[in-house]
Amino acid sequence: MAKLTTRAEDYSKWYNELVVKANLAENSGVRGCMVIKPYGYAIWEKLQAELDKRFKETGHQNAYFPLFVPKSLFEAEEKNAEGFAKECAVVTHYRLKNDPNNPGKLMVDPEAKLEEELIVRPTSEAIIWSTYKNWIQSYRDLPILINQWANVVRWEMRTRLFLRTAEFLWQEGHTAHATRIEAEEEAVKMQEVYRDVVENFMAIPVVKGYKTPSERFAGADETYTIEALMQDGKALQAGTSHFLGQNFAKAFDVKFTTNEGKQEYVWATSWGVSTRLMGALIMTHSDDLGLVLPPKLAPIQVAIVPIYKTAEQLEEIRSVVDKIQDGLKAKGISVKFDDDDKSKPGWKFAEYELKGVPVRMAIGPKDLEKGHVEVARRDTLEKQFIVLDEVVDKTEALLEDIQNNLYQKAFDYRTEHTTEVKTFEEFKEVLENKGGFISALWDGTEETEEAVKDATKATIRCIPQAFEIPTEGIDMFSGKPAKFRVLYAKAY
Amino acid sequence: MAKLTTRAEDYSKWYNELVVKANLAENSGVRGCMVIKPYGYAIWEKLQAELDKRFKETGHQNAYFPLFVPKSLFEAEEKNAEGFAKECAVVTHYRLKNDPNNPGKLMVDPEAKLEEELIVRPTSEAIIWSTYKNWIQSYRDLPILINQWANVVRWEMRTRLFLRTAEFLWQEGHTAHATRIEAEEEAVKMQEVYRDVVENFMAIPVVKGYKTPSERFAGADETYTIEALMQDGKALQAGTSHFLGQNFAKAFDVKFTTNEGKQEYVWATSWGVSTRLMGALIMTHSDDLGLVLPPKLAPIQVAIVPIYKTAEQLEEIRSVVDKIQDGLKAKGISVKFDDDDKSKPGWKFAEYELKGVPVRMAIGPKDLEKGHVEVARRDTLEKQFIVLDEVVDKTEALLEDIQNNLYQKAFDYRTEHTTEVKTFEEFKEVLENKGGFISALWDGTEETEEAVKDATKATIRCIPQAFEIPTEGIDMFSGKPAKFRVLYAKAY
Repeated sequence: MAKLTTRAEDYSKWYNELVVKANLAENSGVRGCMVIKPYGYAIWEKLQAELDKRFKETGHQNAYFPLFVPKSLFEAEEKNAEGFAKECAVVTHYRLKNDPNNPGKLMVDPEAKLEEELIVRPTSEAIIWSTYKNWIQSYRDLPILINQWANVVRWEMRTRLFLRTAEFLWQEGHTAHATRIEAEEEAVKMQEVYRDVVENFMAIPVVKGYKTPSERFAGADETYTIEALMQDGKALQAGTSHFLGQNFAKAFDVKFTTNEGKQEYVWATSWGVSTRLMGALIMTHSDDLGLVLPPKLAPIQVAIVPIYKTAEQLEEIRSVVDKIQDGLKAKGISVKFDDDDKSKPGWKFAEYELKGVPVRMAIGPKDLEKGHVEVARRDTLEKQFIVLDEVVDKTEALLEDIQNNLYQKAFDYRTEHTTEVKTFEEFKEVLENKGGFISALWDGTEETEEAVKDATKATIRCIPQAFEIPTEGIDMFSGKPAKFRVLYAKAY
Repeated sequence: MAKLTTRAEDYSKWYNELVVKANLAENSGVRGCMVIKPYGYAIWEKLQAELDKRFKETGHQNAYFPLFVPKSLFEAEEKNAEGFAKECAVVTHYRLKNDPNNPGKLMVDPEAKLEEELIVRPTSEAIIWSTYKNWIQSYRDLPILINQWANVVRWEMRTRLFLRTAEFLWQEGHTAHATRIEAEEEAVKMQEVYRDVVENFMAIPVVKGYKTPSERFAGADETYTIEALMQDGKALQAGTSHFLGQNFAKAFDVKFTTNEGKQEYVWATSWGVSTRLMGALIMTHSDDLGLVLPPKLAPIQVAIVPIYKTAEQLEEIRSVVDKIQDGLKAKGISVKFDDDDKSKPGWKFAEYELKGVPVRMAIGPKDLEKGHVEVARRDTLEKQFIVLDEVVDKTEALLEDIQNNLYQKAFDYRTEHTTEVKTFEEFKEVLENKGGFISALWDGTEETEEAVKDATKATIRCIPQAFEIPTEGIDMFSGKPAKFRVLYAKAY
């Protein structure tokens, strides 16, 4: 197996190679669209299941809305969702026919032109709010707390597996409320659900914050975000939750009768995370040998490799491994005994390293004699021998330790790569030589934000909710009085 | 709440009303596309989970392939998949722009025309087989056992909620094998998985059979089907599993090196069920009061309605109900205590009947005095009083009984509506007056099949696997020697 490009050599190339070699995903024959391979999809499914559980625990239900958005609905929404909404896949016809001039070829049937073009959804606010209009008459119909798991399409010119693809998978929550405060609380609640899952399940530390007006979703009054930091010092927006005010209710004329009999516009939120999180997962934990997976997300948590020469040896090993497997499975740990005789143990070790399996065991005749198993952890690559009686309990503890260690390591990296600066000179120096989050004071103007971005490519990732608004200080760039402490970074 | 049209009045209207009133789905503003509402989606999710479990138990993994199929891939496949493939949504452009002549309006940007049109997948054989080509070199790469959960689009002119929609949700399995026999076994295995889930989970009896050549999927050498019978005497194809031979491997040039070093085309299957099953579910069990759900699929299995006048009474009831709820939940039974004070008990009863909740309990002060609960089953509408100590265990047994009863009732209906005929006169008479499956001898020719269809609209649903090939007899229509005993029916 050819080795991966190292991160130090070329981080971007390392990422691309890793995604393909670890069998997570690959580019398809369709421009900008990826194939998510079984191993990658298995990780996505575990993440989906965890998110879905939390959505349901917080009172949400799943539903499904159409893939297509008629152009006229887009026009109604356009004020809210300029920008990305225009780069999209447009369905104009509904039939192919045999090409009379090219036998064996197909052509679009010009007689099957749609009266109104259909857009493949880039997001579903338009189609969902035009539906909610019929569902909402009175305050009794509120709140509506719905989530959808779906594919969406945005016509991206430069794509990268998981991080930016024309088609991607995501969930989008769309809620409707009777009061402003309830909608605001919902938006913040879902940001917290995202933080919880990304930190405690994916082992990725994030900063909770809100976006500056220029970085907000176009139809939002406030965009809450969780921002992660990758190993190359670039930030990645891991999830957003939007307080939409009454913008969509006004665009689609969705009013309700209040308890007091008045007519009011409905308040709204939307929130989403996507297969982009797979990119964050890979870039946060993995190393030059391959993927490193937090145990809670790993499709295979423990791989057991037998080392043998004869069929008798294999059978002896198997009888011991059977007990270990039973013990692990009883604890809900997923385990694979790899007795495939087409590959050698060394090849298997490398394969499980590449695939990020958290714990790998090896067991041969000598181990049986000594009554122990060799246990290797993927995160630190440390090995130890564990006596057979203790292997199940210690493996359970080890998986927990790996989960915590991965989080702590990423947390420490972020701490080391979060730098407070006072001047723009310092800012540039840190950005150039160290990367990471840069904490600085901002005067609150779009002019400054734009100027810093133009000069350095760094953007304001968020105004962290944890930061107090400072009572004094000046913007590092403009020198004007500061309004907020913000985190800048270059970002994916 | 306005009553439903009855089945006897207008079966089709009853169905349409029921789907909407029970909050399962509704038509959207997008032609032919439906909105699957939370209650309908919750049922679909339970069905999905059950199918997914069985797919994994039989060795399959999930993956995800692109939504779009380039036109040229369609051309390669066209021999295999004529027919439906041409009525499809065609993406021709990738951008909208502001219409200079109509302020506030959008138009397709003529400069953003795709070089090659993209088809929204009507099914994924083409995109998947063009991918498998890169995955398969040697017999070691086989078998590939993949399933995909996805949305697909077929441009249907006449649509009906769940039964026939332009966009629908489904799963599609696509497997690749080294040998013909392995692929054939796979196709038959998945037909059995479908039968198992549809009969034992959805409580819908089905006939296993295979399709006549004219009713096969265009790219298949054999199409295995499960056929259900609806309450109006029409059949519904509930799932199909195709043995594709080497047709797709040849269309996409997918060869592998055998163990002996020879180059051979790969053998294939595909198999799918869709949201159409929701239509089968509704039409098999429901009645004039609304939906009837088999307990295994019901999102709410037990609804408990308190009957009270004072807050004290409600609290007394609640303390008793808490224990019942705990007991039911401990058994994995989903239960809803409906203490919403905005609606009256009578309204709630009707609502739970409409929604098909299998068991409804009512409990008031008099019941507390007597130490019992009123328990009503949805399928037979029978009521009984159960003493509090026994209510948990008896409810569990009752749910099982309802599940079995629904299956048995549908099975009995089907038995009564399966008629063996010898002559075409009999055939027409049964079709006209009784409907259902009609068992008859067939000479095996497409001419006869077509002639019967043209004369009566009945089609050969399948050649049941359970029927022996008769050694003698004549075709009921042509009078020629018969080859098969088949089941005819009018069908959805």
